[in-house]
Amino acid sequence: MPEVTNSPSNRLSEFFDKPVAVVNVGLPLFAESVRRQGLPVVDVDWRPPPEGVPRLTHTKTGISMDEANAEAVRRIMAGRPMIVGLGLARDVIPGMTDRTILHAGPPIAWERMCGPTRGAVMGALVYEGLTATPEEAAALAASGDIAFDPCHHHHAVGPMAGVVSPSMPVWIIENAEFGNRAYCTLNEGLGKVLRYGAYGDEVYRRLRWMADVLYPTLADAVAKSGPIDLRAMIAQALHMGDECHNRNRAGTALLLRALGPALARTCADGERLAQVIEFIDGNDHFFLNLSMPAGKAMLEPAEGIPGATVLTVMARNGTDFGIRLAGDPGRWFVAPAGMVEGLYLPGFTAADANPDIGDSTVTETAGFGGFAMAAAPAIARFVGGTAQDAISATLEMYEICFAEHQFFTIPALEFRGTPVGIDVRLVTETGILPRLNTGIAHKEPGIGMVGAGVLRAPGACFAAAFEAVKSW
Amino acid sequence: MPEVTNSPSNRLSEFFDKPVAVVNVGLPLFAESVRRQGLPVVDVDWRPPPEGVPRLTHTKTGISMDEANAEAVRRIMAGRPMIVGLGLARDVIPGMTDRTILHAGPPIAWERMCGPTRGAVMGALVYEGLTATPEEAAALAASGDIAFDPCHHHHAVGPMAGVVSPSMPVWIIENAEFGNRAYCTLNEGLGKVLRYGAYGDEVYRRLRWMADVLYPTLADAVAKSGPIDLRAMIAQALHMGDECHNRNRAGTALLLRALGPALARTCADGERLAQVIEFIDGNDHFFLNLSMPAGKAMLEPAEGIPGATVLTVMARNGTDFGIRLAGDPGRWFVAPAGMVEGLYLPGFTAADANPDIGDSTVTETAGFGGFAMAAAPAIARFVGGTAQDAISATLEMYEICFAEHQFFTIPALEFRGTPVGIDVRLVTETGILPRLNTGIAHKEPGIGMVGAGVLRAPGACFAAAFEAVKSW
Repeated sequence: MPEVTNSPSNRLSEFFDKPVAVVNVGLPLFAESVRRQGLPVVDVDWRPPPEGVPRLTHTKTGISMDEANAEAVRRIMAGRPMIVGLGLARDVIPGMTDRTILHAGPPIAWERMCGPTRGAVMGALVYEGLTATPEEAAALAASGDIAFDPCHHHHAVGPMAGVVSPSMPVWIIENAEFGNRAYCTLNEGLGKVLRYGAYGDEVYRRLRWMADVLYPTLADAVAKSGPIDLRAMIAQALHMGDECHNRNRAGTALLLRALGPALARTCADGERLAQVIEFIDGNDHFFLNLSMPAGKAMLEPAEGIPGATVLTVMARNGTDFGIRLAGDPGRWFVAPAGMVEGLYLPGFTAADANPDIGDSTVTETAGFGGFAMAAAPAIARFVGGTAQDAISATLEMYEICFAEHQFFTIPALEFRGTPVGIDVRLVTETGILPRLNTGIAHKEPGIGMVGAGVLRAPGACFAAAFEAVKSW
Repeated sequence: MPEVTNSPSNRLSEFFDKPVAVVNVGLPLFAESVRRQGLPVVDVDWRPPPEGVPRLTHTKTGISMDEANAEAVRRIMAGRPMIVGLGLARDVIPGMTDRTILHAGPPIAWERMCGPTRGAVMGALVYEGLTATPEEAAALAASGDIAFDPCHHHHAVGPMAGVVSPSMPVWIIENAEFGNRAYCTLNEGLGKVLRYGAYGDEVYRRLRWMADVLYPTLADAVAKSGPIDLRAMIAQALHMGDECHNRNRAGTALLLRALGPALARTCADGERLAQVIEFIDGNDHFFLNLSMPAGKAMLEPAEGIPGATVLTVMARNGTDFGIRLAGDPGRWFVAPAGMVEGLYLPGFTAADANPDIGDSTVTETAGFGGFAMAAAPAIARFVGGTAQDAISATLEMYEICFAEHQFFTIPALEFRGTPVGIDVRLVTETGILPRLNTGIAHKEPGIGMVGAGVLRAPGACFAAAFEAVKSW
């Protein structure tokens, strides 16, 4: 190709060298980041043991773990989560009573709850009219008269504190392939909101508007439009700069496009319709409360496959981080929740931050969120990284996942499927911990959001789960 | 970094080698593509002359071309195109009469018009009620009784045939920084549509619905919402997988988000509102007819800067390809329009294709479209390329552009500004021709769209423009 040799194209090749240089620089940073984020936070004594970890292949009864995992990820990927309607938590979430409060993460008693979870519980009890003040609410919560339970025990998921109280409206997501349903509240927006542990009149007023105006308007529209395909919407959003956890701008736009005609046909009050659209348009995270239950709906059918070592649950309550395995779905493996590396809203610092919190890691568990970081370089940049860091993050997650997603693909990786099916064996063998994207709540009740960032899951719960798998 | 040496990160570095390999493979393909697309089509005798091209730095009167170009791109980037309203072409486009038909590209007489332009003109004359049949319309067009003029002579742009007739509704875009206005029709959607040269009842019916229902509904909404910032919307869309020429999915979604509340407040008829939203939602290219006049509005203030060698116009009428320079905006440099490398709709092949057509290359001229291909890997894939090819395409365009855009950035290139300000000197010195994304029209009138693809601008008009610059 002599006509190219002396052409300006040679100059182009200089540009192409740049990403490679970034990679070389990035590797020590990555090692440092593992050191900084993973080890000190989780368990100072725990170390990635890439040497000497036994390769587990079969259960004692001879079940092939690879075959079990193949079935698990097949079910996860085959899932077709659809919005089929909305309802009030008490009416539609199985096992919900008038005195039940659901929360994010593994089980936890009031006494051990972190500040933002307490704040959200207090706010919810006032919102429900069960008490008049947050102080009375704290007393009621401590009295034993309220049943606390993880969202995950009720086919539900909740971002941050993840508090669901009986009269809150929830999305109803049905997995059209398997028939199971998942539930999630409607996203309140950012700032001083209940899910970040805030309470007070501003919070109650918004929650009431959501129940009185937003909920019936959306319910009527979904009834008119028929089921809305969330797998297709997530797949598209991943091609539009979202990873559907910390960035949901495209997902929110696609939802509005899909619901628009039905909203117009069912909401005769133009001013009300305008306010509903403004609320959704004003909150780029509105779609998060759909991507999350979509992930939950896709993951549940994989629960209970003997020998399957992939995760079906990864969730935090702000005190503890817990995981559950497809092969043993009733058991939580728990470790202390980590601290988030992030950027803070004006007026706040890392000293204000609560540990990692929320069920939103259901997105990473289902093969998007932080695992699809390469699709959303804007997030990497937001926390001081580069587009190349975003690609590195996703490439690393392939090392601990059993499969590549059939339907969720990443343009920047030549439309390669996202890493899906976190295999506790690969996590243990490689010493690579799952990367998570998340928001940051203030550690005290009643305040709210202070920032957003990234971190890794704590190693100790994976070590414990791996020990359990050894005995299968 | 010994803790990394034996870690799985080594395996990661294997992935990073892949893009580099693609690049090495890509360069001969690029050379071949120049050979195949540029030379035979435009002028068999013309060759990229990287050696022996004089570096032009000053006009004969001593004006620095670099300084002139710096002012030109400063103005282009400073432009703030806003949707300020809609109107009928005859009422708002300067110089438009009841017998004027505007078309895309450089000036051309009826006799030399390509099939799709003729088809669109015939369709427009029937739509206007000036004749009853396409055949009569052809006779009227040939009679000399219709004034044909380029859109670009009236501050307007039109995709494909770019035909604007007096009673068509148009977007009114105002550059808030400089006060100039630009105009463009509303996008009809894909398939059998006027801009691709189709006519017939289906086409007229859609145009009438657009004038009778879509236009007033949008006009009321824009009047209510106030000006809508298109520069911000294009900047966002470039972060969401669009390049705002061949892909406008995000732009269309962002437009609906922005207009939604005002639409709800001004359109009391829910069914009508639903149909308007469905029409927009059903056409991922709806935003193209906004990104184009946004580009036009940004480019015009750079016209008439003595010594400026960057392009302010690049447009095709399906027969000729024409460019105009900021330093000499009244003069077209014209060459035969090229053939598009593309994919075809079922039932059509390259034998059906008309040469390159439309004003939509205003997007590349303004620093997005094909020049921002790295932002939209899905398009590269659509025509058989890879995400790496998309990055290569944009990197190559930096070689012929005077600046990098201040506000339009590309995530995959670490948010580097898009290449902007095509400098005819750099095109000539490097022999690199502008890359264009485009749709493909059937070469016969009356049929419509047959595909979409990519090509390069013809070299001959750049060679001619460069010769002219020598004499400045």
